[in-house]
Parts: sequence; structure tokens; C-alpha cells
Amino acid sequence: MQNKRWVLASRPSGWLTEENFRLETPPVGAPREGEVLVKNLWLSLDPYMRGRMNAAKSYVKPVEIGELMVGQTAGEVLESKHPAFAKGDSVLTGLGWQLFGCAKGDALNKVDAKRAPLSYYLGCLGMPGMTAYFGLKEIGQPKSGDTVVVSAASGAVGSVVGQLAKLWGCRAVGIAGGSAKCDYVTRELGFDACVDYKAGNLLRDLEAACPKGVDVYFENVGGAVLDTVLRVMNVSSRIVLCGMVADYNATEPYGVKTLRSVLSNRIRMQGMIVFDWKDRYVEAIKALAGYLAQGKLKYRESVIEGLENAPRGLIGLLKGENFGKQLVKLA
Amino acid sequence: MQNKRWVLASRPSGWLTEENFRLETPPVGAPREGEVLVKNLWLSLDPYMRGRMNAAKSYVKPVEIGELMVGQTAGEVLESKHPAFAKGDSVLTGLGWQLFGCAKGDALNKVDAKRAPLSYYLGCLGMPGMTAYFGLKEIGQPKSGDTVVVSAASGAVGSVVGQLAKLWGCRAVGIAGGSAKCDYVTRELGFDACVDYKAGNLLRDLEAACPKGVDVYFENVGGAVLDTVLRVMNVSSRIVLCGMVADYNATEPYGVKTLRSVLSNRIRMQGMIVFDWKDRYVEAIKALAGYLAQGKLKYRESVIEGLENAPRGLIGLLKGENFGKQLVKLA
Repeated sequence: MQNKRWVLASRPSGWLTEENFRLETPPVGAPREGEVLVKNLWLSLDPYMRGRMNAAKSYVKPVEIGELMVGQTAGEVLESKHPAFAKGDSVLTGLGWQLFGCAKGDALNKVDAKRAPLSYYLGCLGMPGMTAYFGLKEIGQPKSGDTVVVSAASGAVGSVVGQLAKLWGCRAVGIAGGSAKCDYVTRELGFDACVDYKAGNLLRDLEAACPKGVDVYFENVGGAVLDTVLRVMNVSSRIVLCGMVADYNATEPYGVKTLRSVLSNRIRMQGMIVFDWKDRYVEAIKALAGYLAQGKLKYRESVIEGLENAPRGLIGLLKGENFGKQLVKLA
Repeated sequence: MQNKRWVLASRPSGWLTEENFRLETPPVGAPREGEVLVKNLWLSLDPYMRGRMNAAKSYVKPVEIGELMVGQTAGEVLESKHPAFAKGDSVLTGLGWQLFGCAKGDALNKVDAKRAPLSYYLGCLGMPGMTAYFGLKEIGQPKSGDTVVVSAASGAVGSVVGQLAKLWGCRAVGIAGGSAKCDYVTRELGFDACVDYKAGNLLRDLEAACPKGVDVYFENVGGAVLDTVLRVMNVSSRIVLCGMVADYNATEPYGVKTLRSVLSNRIRMQGMIVFDWKDRYVEAIKALAGYLAQGKLKYRESVIEGLENAPRGLIGLLKGENFGKQLVKLA
């Protein structure tokens, strides 16, 4: 049986291109004792992947040239040499950009594909959903009546942030690129307002959408957007620094000029990564699955067919071309 | 009796000049019912004053053109029409850049000039000392063994921050301009190390002074110094954003390019102003006076003689020419 896998061919300088990836077709390996052979069905594409392609350490070590591209997948057990897994089980894996792979049992998580579609465990019930949940709840600490602003509002994380803000009694304001995304954010997801950063009047439009200023800002983008939102933050407000996608492809990082607002408004700005709450994942999944079952959490996927198209999908994601959680359907 | 007072003549653009101030000599007013006439003995010069000279709101409203320059003073009661104050009392006031002034009793604080020299209540036992105390303790939250870095380390706030860090079991590393200040910080104040930012190798020298990285950074300066320190911060570290003097005279604020460190290291950065702890001032003064009495808190003043020289003193302070807490001796 033949595998397909994408490896890092070269480190990108600035914008990622398809030439930075190389497709390989080695044979599928057999599981050793304690391992499980998985057929990947869904690959999640996420902005953090761009960081892992640089030589510099971000959260963790970079992908080396010639190594398999990292990523989370959802799949099905084909063969198990681990007592906790059986053929046919649905699992979440870190097997990366490939069709098949062997993983140690303790690197896999079984999921209940009857409670929600399998792909949801890569999105609103997975890392993005839990990132929204813990970031907003624990760092944003929104109070009822607060104005919560989130960038990349139609994305996997942002869409959940705004809906949780509404469920928790706040005014939810999104920032997104283009009127189609903004319409989706307000009409489908139920945000109170959404500002189109591509319209060219971000400051004025934000001020209009946030007449009482901003109490919590959930940042997925960074760069010029952060520089602008800092100008409308309230005294004692909070910024959840979750992503800075705008910088990931920049050869020279953006210089943030309005940081003085953090001083004069006594803002608390904190960086986050969802792994810091790994002993509380069950709490988040339970809450999110509950909202989903009650129809209170809407969720949209942007699906690309075929592993061959994964590089194109990541490039599009980093350019904001996706609309909802970006996935690659592998089978 | 004739007063002397400095008013704002014009708003500075970029660097402050003496032409931005005008000296006036109106008669001294008489206290009304509930007021106290004070002879100012010491005027405190502080970086925040530069912000108040701009038209834009910082913490509070700006000084208007033609208005008295704001500032804290320590003085002596000449005449009281308030039951809580008597002639001869030592008081802290917000009477600003003038020799005499009338204030309502509830705008004054009596201090014990026997416990410490009167001027100390404008420094290590006043706003700067309490800023150091609450900022480090409540936002920095240093643990024993942590590395604490503070900029403007020989200044009124920084000198107390580093000494408290040592008293609380941390490694204290200062950043200061020039070898004389650095020598003072290590030899007199007892910091473990002090890096001269003017020497041109701030990153390399910081790395050498902080072999285990930085757990708490107490920021008084901002700009390029902040951009550099962000590169050596540890995971889960804290930044106390207390001052950004480097920006106060800039026509174009510095663009901070390493903010991604806040994300990847999950740093908590928080702006502060000491007024947020006003109901706990007694705790801070008690602790600081205790350390001072035990000889564990060293403190240095930079004294300019005469109200006439106050503008020159503020300009020098903003350029880092002072060495220790900057005061103007008024009588």
C-alpha cells in the first residue's frame, strides 16, 4: 500500500509558495508493538504551521528540511497493536500531512464520531474551539455587558469567540475581510456588528461599532489591525494575544506604534496557547458540545478535496481566502 | 507676598524646550474656608509631566495653554482654615510648579518629617517608591530565584524595583545609560548586574547578564529597549509597563517589532499607574520605610536649586541626565 506525504522542501522567505513543499510516495509502514496504523480522513490547516516552517523556534522546534509537514488529522484505525484501540475507531492524531501513518497509542485520542461529525473535532470541538473557550474565559475574563472584539471573526477560532461572548452576555464585534464574511458573522453567527478591515476605515468603523469602547480584544491577526484596535481599548481592558497571522509571512515584522495605550489604559495583554489548559480540555469540549447540540453554536467548514491541494490550502488560509475552518478532505 | 509659577506657554512638538514654559509672578492668594496655604519646599520632576503637556488625553486631562504646570510638592503649612491642619505641618500637595499655593484640606496629605527627610516622600516613600512596590509585587509577581530586569535602573522607580527584587529573593539586573550609573546600580544599590544600553550591545549584554532568561521585566523606558528585552523573555514571564519615556518626546512613536514574543512565550504584559492601589498606600509606605530604617533600601536624589531651573530639570530628566530621583529645591 502506497502512502502520500508532503515534506518541507525549502524554508519560505516571506510569502509561502507551493515550491516550499515536496510530495513523496513511500510505502505505508506496518505498526510495531504499541502502535496503531491510521488512515487519515481529514487534515486540519492552521496558521501556526507557517511558523513551524521557519528555522527559528516558535512554541516548539521547527520542521526540518525534508521532514514531514506537521498537522493534526482525524482518521480511522486500520490496524492496532495497542490494547486501547481497535480497527474502526475514530481518532485524533498528530500524524501530519499524509494519507496513512503509524502512531504510538498514547499519541492518539479516541473521539465519539456519533456525537458530532468527525471533522468537528479538528474545529469547534478541537484545538480552535478550545483556544476560543480558554482564551476568552481565562484571559479575556469578559463581564456581562462588556464589548468583546475578535479579529479573523469568521475563522475557526474567531467564530467561536464571538458566539461565546454573546452566550456570556457581551456585545460581540467581529473584524473580518470583505462584506461576505462580515455578513456571515452578523447574520449567521449572530455577532452584534462586524467591521470590514479591507474597507479602509478600520478606526472609524470600529469606533462606530463599539460606542462604549472595547473591554476585551481577542487577537488572531496582529500587525496594523492590532495597532488600530489599541486606540479604542478601554481602561483596564484585556487583550488575548492568540495569533499574529499578519506577521507570519512578513520578512520584516510590523512595528506596533500604539503600545502606549497598554500603559495609559492599564491594559493586560497576554499571549496564549491552548496546550497550557490541557488538563481542562474535557471541560471545554463538554461546554462546546452542549452549545452545539442546543443549536447555539454555529460552525462553518471550508473544505479542500485531496492531499495534493494541501499546500495551496495553507497559502490561501494565510491570505485569508478561506471562509470558516480550513480542512483538507483526504478520503 | 509674591508667588512664582511656571505655566505652559506652548505645546512641545517632539523634544521639549524651555520656550514651552513661561514664568509668572502673581501675588500669593489667601486661603478660603476649608483651605490651607502651603509654602512649597520641594517640587518633584517626573516623566509623566511630558505627557500632560500634549493635547491628547493620557491618564487624565492635559495641561491647557496658560495653565500652571502640574506636579507634586512637599511643603509646610503657613496658614490653615481647615481643622485637620495647623501652621508648621509638613504636607504632600498637588500644587504644581509654584512657590506658594492654596489647596483644599482633602487634597493634602500630612507626612511625618521626623521619620524620613521631607523630600523622601516625593521619592522612595512616595509615588515612585509605591509604583515600584505595587508594580513589582502585584503585576510582576516575582518568585524567589526569578530574574528581574528593570530599565532606568538608577532612577526613582527603577532603583527601588531592583532593591525590592533582591530583598524578595530574585536576581536583579538593571539597564541604565553610561558606566557611572551602571556602577552605582551594582556597587551602591546591590543589583547583581547592570547593562549599559549606550554601549551598543544591549541584546548580547542582556543575554550575558541573564543566563536563565528574564522572568519579570519592569519597563520605564519603552522603544528600542523594550524591543530588545522582549527577545530574552522566558515562557510565562511578566512585563510591568510603567513608563515609556523613550516615546514621550518622539513625534513619531517607535514601532515595536518583537511583540510576537508575547505570543510565543505567553507573556503577560500589563500597564500600570500607582493610583490603582490608592487604598493600599499605607501598606507600601510601611514596608518601604521599614527597609529604609534597616538600611536595606538605598536612595539617591538629584537636586536642582530654584524654581527658575525647573524646566531645565525636566528636559534633563527626559534625556536621562539626572542621577537618582529628580527634585527641585524651592527654599
